[in-house]
Amino acid sequence: MPKPSHREKLLEAGFEVVLERGYCGASVRDIVHAAGAPQGSFTNHFASKEAFCLELLDRYFAMVEENIRLTLRNDASKPLARLEEWFDIQVRVLKKAGMRNGCLIGNFSAEAGEHSEPIRKRLREIYHEIHGSVAYCLEAAVKARELHASADCDELAHFLYAALHGAILQSKVEHSPAPLKRFKKTLFAVVLRPEPPRL
Amino acid sequence: MPKPSHREKLLEAGFEVVLERGYCGASVRDIVHAAGAPQGSFTNHFASKEAFCLELLDRYFAMVEENIRLTLRNDASKPLARLEEWFDIQVRVLKKAGMRNGCLIGNFSAEAGEHSEPIRKRLREIYHEIHGSVAYCLEAAVKARELHASADCDELAHFLYAALHGAILQSKVEHSPAPLKRFKKTLFAVVLRPEPPRL
Repeated sequence: MPKPSHREKLLEAGFEVVLERGYCGASVRDIVHAAGAPQGSFTNHFASKEAFCLELLDRYFAMVEENIRLTLRNDASKPLARLEEWFDIQVRVLKKAGMRNGCLIGNFSAEAGEHSEPIRKRLREIYHEIHGSVAYCLEAAVKARELHASADCDELAHFLYAALHGAILQSKVEHSPAPLKRFKKTLFAVVLRPEPPRL
Repeated sequence: MPKPSHREKLLEAGFEVVLERGYCGASVRDIVHAAGAPQGSFTNHFASKEAFCLELLDRYFAMVEENIRLTLRNDASKPLARLEEWFDIQVRVLKKAGMRNGCLIGNFSAEAGEHSEPIRKRLREIYHEIHGSVAYCLEAAVKARELHASADCDELAHFLYAALHGAILQSKVEHSPAPLKRFKKTLFAVVLRPEPPRL
């Protein structure tokens, strides 16, 4: 019987390794070494690196969902303040790694989806889920008159989440939170305004 | 003396391989195989995979610069139409690969920068150059009264280029140009408007 503790150690240490080095860049040897686990333990617990990374992605998304529950879906606070808090949580997480690692969802979108069809499909589902929560918060902002009634929350949610990923990419390249600060400033000053859009 | 034709074949075939599989996912063996070149030819021409990928990045950026010259920097056309044409060229290039590969700059930002400091530094310079051309086009739009005089072209250029990269990532995951169409629609309808921003 494989020890359950090795499984957990591999997932915890492997998360850092895969976030930092990427799907292809992180080898099973790197993961086992970072976990301080015996060489054979990986194959005792995981069918493949793909299966391992799918589990990492699910764990990452569970964390994302928890942050969404506390912010975007938290009806007790004002909608645009919730959106801002959602960004701020992400910046705090990224800062812990010196803005070097980026977001597992964005990293896997750029790289892993081309190597693994199950990961690409899971990413598509994750985008759909997150989009729904961003749109939910923007619709609440319309109801609270923080956004104009004519705002297309569905389209804005796609746009905003894309821009966030792009800003995270830039932050990785610059090793600096500046691109994310700029993103937030322009988003709230220009995109999310109470006036009606030109259409 | 190494044959110059092998060098060119390696760069041409290697470009497709690296764009599709990523910096870590593309091995020297893959590149040599795709080029139909002899095994030893790679090391005859390139000091390392890093040096090879830096050269790919420079060739890719030369193509980007040429597209920028034809659109963003082309003073003969109306500024926002130039911006739109710049996006359309990129969508046409991405469509050729079935929207699967994304942009080398975005892919390397997500992955290669963590493995190679020279690549990360080159990406930072490339972002700076492209940002300058986007801002140039937006400033022309202000002069042409297509954008309000109070528009912060510098900030808008950062935001817009980040959002474009995010939309390309989403297109890769969906294998569809839909995220890029949505990005363009929201950008022109909401972000780039002639009215003054709320500040």
